[in-house]
Amino acid sequence: MAEDNSIFIGAKPFMNYVTGVVMQFTTKGAESVVVKARGKFISRAVDVAEVAAKRFLDNAVSVRDIRIDSEEFENKEGRQVRVSTVEITLGKK
Amino acid sequence: MAEDNSIFIGAKPFMNYVTGVVMQFTTKGAESVVVKARGKFISRAVDVAEVAAKRFLDNAVSVRDIRIDSEEFENKEGRQVRVSTVEITLGKK
Repeated sequence: MAEDNSIFIGAKPFMNYVTGVVMQFTTKGAESVVVKARGKFISRAVDVAEVAAKRFLDNAVSVRDIRIDSEEFENKEGRQVRVSTVEITLGKK
Repeated sequence: MAEDNSIFIGAKPFMNYVTGVVMQFTTKGAESVVVKARGKFISRAVDVAEVAAKRFLDNAVSVRDIRIDSEEFENKEGRQVRVSTVEITLGKK
């Protein structure tokens, strides 16, 4: 799947992301879309995936795969920090 | 799998949950443990699963399955509210 079918969840208004996912499937004809998030935005990514798939694209799209992982990076203070990540793949049924 | 192998993530100190997961596998000899959460605690459930599996039980336990879903319920004001849920199954390799 092409990387441009990814939607990275952050602090923008919730419906921006839902609309983004829905439009990938409808306007752009994507076969699948990956909803990605890190840290505290993981809960939001699940919300986006659920609302997009169930309320807006009901019976046309479902969860194909969910992966969780961790990333280690150095914060501003030079400390090693671990952050969780999620990738939720939604696909046409 | 028995229901008592489930750990429900809430607002208690983070390490309580990690220890709970680790002890299910070590002291209680569980084959698998399901880490469950709703709403904003979903991010935390992913953190608990990642830290327990990778930092504390490395090479012995991995993610077997992740499911997301939605629950509808009536809030105090009588409004229908939707909340996302997650179930992360960790299992012995």
